[in-house]
This record gives sequence, C-alpha cells and structure tokens, in this order.
Amino acid sequence: MATMNSAKTVTPRAADRIRRIAVVGAGTIGTSWAGYFSGSGYDVVVVEPQAAARERVPDAVAQCHRAMAAARLRDPAAATGAVTVIEAIAALDGAAIDFVQENVREELAVKQVTLRALDALLPPDVLIASSTSGLGASDLQDGCVHPQRVLVGHPMNPPHLLPLVEIVGGRATSPDAVQAAAGIYAAMGKRPVVLNREVIGHLATRLTVALWREAACLVRDGVASVADVDAAVTHGLGLRLAVAGPHLSYHLGGGDNGLAGFFAWAREPLQGWCDDLGTLTLDADLEAKLAAGIAAAVGDHGVAELAQWRDTALAGVLAQLRETPAPIDR
Amino acid sequence: MATMNSAKTVTPRAADRIRRIAVVGAGTIGTSWAGYFSGSGYDVVVVEPQAAARERVPDAVAQCHRAMAAARLRDPAAATGAVTVIEAIAALDGAAIDFVQENVREELAVKQVTLRALDALLPPDVLIASSTSGLGASDLQDGCVHPQRVLVGHPMNPPHLLPLVEIVGGRATSPDAVQAAAGIYAAMGKRPVVLNREVIGHLATRLTVALWREAACLVRDGVASVADVDAAVTHGLGLRLAVAGPHLSYHLGGGDNGLAGFFAWAREPLQGWCDDLGTLTLDADLEAKLAAGIAAAVGDHGVAELAQWRDTALAGVLAQLRETPAPIDR
Repeated sequence: MATMNSAKTVTPRAADRIRRIAVVGAGTIGTSWAGYFSGSGYDVVVVEPQAAARERVPDAVAQCHRAMAAARLRDPAAATGAVTVIEAIAALDGAAIDFVQENVREELAVKQVTLRALDALLPPDVLIASSTSGLGASDLQDGCVHPQRVLVGHPMNPPHLLPLVEIVGGRATSPDAVQAAAGIYAAMGKRPVVLNREVIGHLATRLTVALWREAACLVRDGVASVADVDAAVTHGLGLRLAVAGPHLSYHLGGGDNGLAGFFAWAREPLQGWCDDLGTLTLDADLEAKLAAGIAAAVGDHGVAELAQWRDTALAGVLAQLRETPAPIDR
Repeated sequence: MATMNSAKTVTPRAADRIRRIAVVGAGTIGTSWAGYFSGSGYDVVVVEPQAAARERVPDAVAQCHRAMAAARLRDPAAATGAVTVIEAIAALDGAAIDFVQENVREELAVKQVTLRALDALLPPDVLIASSTSGLGASDLQDGCVHPQRVLVGHPMNPPHLLPLVEIVGGRATSPDAVQAAAGIYAAMGKRPVVLNREVIGHLATRLTVALWREAACLVRDGVASVADVDAAVTHGLGLRLAVAGPHLSYHLGGGDNGLAGFFAWAREPLQGWCDDLGTLTLDADLEAKLAAGIAAAVGDHGVAELAQWRDTALAGVLAQLRETPAPIDR
C-alpha cells in the first residue's frame, strides 16, 4: 500500500515537458497520430511488430503532414519532429519517452498486455493514453502497477485532422493525470473534452452510433436508399453539425428565447419523434442490404481513393472554419 | 369521380416552366426560401398576414443574397428575381404562380386550411410543396380538391444555404408530381432526396433527433456538459458528417473491404453500443438542465448574433466544399 500511495502522488509529466512521444501500434490510427505529433514538432517513436506496417509509416506520415498543411494545422516551414520506427516495446526502455499514445488492436486482452508492458517500463510520471473507441479506462488500467497514469485519449478518425480528443479516466486514474492529459492535447492543438465518468463508447462513438442506427433503420425499412440517407446528412444536418452542435442548433432554432423557446413549441412533437426512433438488430440480411447500398453508392471508386478525397475535403473545411472564428467556444 | 380522374391526369408544371413562386408564410423558413428563390432568379410572391413579418422581408431577403454569394450559391452579377409581399392568399388569384412553397405555422389544422385555400385557387398543374418538418403529406393534402399536386418539400434550416430538400408524397400525391418537384428543386441548385414512403420526421428530422436524443441523455446522465457534448460534435463527428455520411464513414473505416470489413470486426461491439443508447422523457427538469447548459455555453451572445455567425461559417464551408468535389454523388 505504501508503494501504491507513493505512486499515486507522482506529478504527471505535463505539456511543457513533452518532447518525445511513443506511438504504440501503427495501424490507421497510430500512423495518423505519428503524423500529427511529428507534424506538430514532437519527436515520435513508433512501435509496431509487423514489418509491413512499419514500412508504410514514412509515406503515411508525409501524407499526414501535407494534409495538416492544407488544413492550416501546421506551418509547412515549422520544425518537424523526428520519426523513429521500432519493433518492440522493450526497445522503449531508456528512450526518454514523455507521453504514450496506444493504438493496438481494439481487443481488451491485447490492449491490457500492451499497457501493462508500457507501464512496467516507463517512469510513473509518463502518461499512457489509449486511443480506444469502445473500451473502458478502468478495464484497460487493470493490472498496471501505476494505473493512475493510464487513461483514454480517444481521437476521431482521421486523428491528424479532426481536433477532438476525448479524455476519460478510469477508477484508478488520478485527477492530475486527467488534467495533465487535457493540457498536453490542448498544447498540441487538439480540442480535448474531459468526460466526468466512464460510459461505453465515450461521447463521440455513442453519438456516431445513434445517428448511424437511425440511418440504418431508414434503409432497412425501405424509406430511402443508403446513398439518399447519406446525402440527407452531407447536404443537410452534417453541414450544420460541422458548425453548431445539436444543442446550439436547437438554441438557434428557438427564436429570441433560444433553447427554452424551442422546447416551448417543439416539446410535444420532439417527444413523439424521440419515441418513434428505431432500434436495430444487426443480422446478415441487414449487413448485406447496407453493403449493397454502399456498393451502389461508391461504384468502382475504392476505399483508398475515397478516404484520400475525404481527407482533402476535411482539410479544406478545417482551414475554412478558421476564417470564421466563432464568438463562443462552441 | 370523373372530375377526380381528370384532375389526376394533369401533368404537373415542371422545372422549365417555373418563373414565379409563391412563398406562403414569412417566418424564418419562408423568408429564407424567398431569399433563395429570388437569389436564384425566380420571381417571388410572399404571402404573410402579419404586417411586422411583411416589413422584415426585404432586409432578410437581401441578407440571404449576401450569404448565398459568400457560399458561391449565386453569382452576385446574376439576375435577381422580383420579390412582392402581399397579405392574403386570395390575392394570388391570377398572379401567374408556377410553384408554391408553404411555410405557415407547424400545426396540422393551420397548414390544412392554408393548403386547401391554395388548392382552391391555383391551376391543378401547379405543385404545392409544404416545408413541414414533422407533419405527413397524406394528412396535409386531406380535403384538397387536387391532392395529387400536394407534397412535402422539406428544407433544412437555413434553406437559403443548406442544399437538402426532402420530397415526400402522400397517399394521393401523383408520382409525376414527386418527380416534377425533384426536378424543380434540382434545377434551382438544391439537392432533392425523394423518400419512398411517409415516415414521421422524414429523414433529416429523424436523424437530427436521433443524434440530439443521445446528446441530451449524456448531459442528463452527467457524463459531460452541454458545451462539451456539442464540442464533441463540432470538433469531431460533425466535421466528418459534412463530408461523408454515416454509411460512407463506416465504409472508409473498414479497410480494403469497406463496410463489409467494418461489420466483420465491429459487428459485436456495434450491436452493444446500439443497445446501450439512451431513451429520453422530456420533462421540466431535463429542459431546465439543457437550457442552463446552453446558457453557460453562449454567455451573453444572443441568438441573432450566433445565427448570423453560423450562416457565415456555413457559407464558407459550402463554398470550400465546391473546391474539393467528390468522386461520387455522396
């Protein structure tokens, strides 16, 4: 207990002391983080056991830097951090790592093994953030000797462009660690949001799933095609949600009295609409129907081409939004 | 019956014959439509019984034109349609109206009275589209002599900027009318989406409510503040949804196998997330909590100021997205 208590009083390494970041796992998310961190001037050590994935890192990082420049997230003339790619976590020993972003496979057992290895190796003041979209911080930190510095730092894909990072502490995470993580992400230009407590899927995954579930129900029930449901988002509510969140949007739809005015006239229909939303069981038929729908929508355009276009479009939108800064911290 | 049948075979006045549009009701939505139609070169007759609302029309229309120019939805040098503002539907008699966009109060009885009056007055080949977000086309056309030309043409607010228009026919709407309406909106630069059948809230309201409901649940349950939940949208999923819809987003997150690949790895957690989403009863406590949350978020910035900023930001995003055209009809 004495050891535990002394560990708990370690002051986390904060934003002003972060020079070198370990990115553990070089899949889509890890590689994108490596691009963002290095493009923001931090040195990066990427840990990836698979040779093929390691080989893809330099090109992917360079592509991230170009997208960041297009998004005005980075001055092309600014210093770029060095990116080193290594094979095993053990090689991080003595590598002067100040912060860890973990991005291995989204499986609790896999992540736990990884986090425990990192925890055993790194000084207890180094924060270890997991990119998990669906697992909980309390489960992830289980079995660590210094669980107080383990937390969720969940980005949205693609992390080198989308500013949001959700920070969630587990049962054993120290409040200092949560605050330090928020400071670290903010210092690197991200928009941290700290959750008050753990919840499955944090905020972003829950909200994404809530929208997708209703979209899938509308296709399942024959109301519209996959392409048309998606078009209703990209040419309608999606555009608005890039600018104003769900509550602010209703606030602006309520006349002079804002959200209260909106509720005053919409209370009854809003409840009815809520109660009419669908629920969904994902079975083979529904998966096939949705897959056929997206196949019809994309034609012979491959995933890589479309993802590249999405990132270019996103970068443009991000750069543009800087031209019209909001009067509030929206 | 002979009259009914002959009415049903009337060919709707299509896109190439639309010169003058009646906008019935000059609230937020009607005024915005008047701005869009006139900014797109159509003559507009606005019908509004309230003097104060009539007086606001010219300034509001001019503001729409400026926003459309900023959004590159309109060449500032292009011809602008004339806007006439009148007091009563009866004065539309003989006004050579080619298309009607109805925007009166969102109450079935009020809309029915209005639509019946329009139906009684206008030649049966003139389409009558309702901007209703929540009412059904079958209910709206009830009692009309020519119900086959009455349908829903639902825009997203603000209609002078957001391209989406949802078209829904009722039981008595002719397929020709639905097709003609889609052609009319497309010809004026909108993105029409035709629903296969009536459903409460069409697509956009359902999807908006699905997202908002979960957002409100997260605030209600103390997971995060209104400001932080909204920030998770505007700095995360909202940005992505402006570019790629919910199915395309998952398709791009599934690796080379796209949506099928996404389901293959996400099937189980996705079902779990779906099942964990909240449901909501809108009571005074929740309304007060959400209103307090938005009040804290907006501070002393009023609705008009924020709506003006939103429109400026939206116009910028729309203009920017034209710079990066998608390889597919997303």
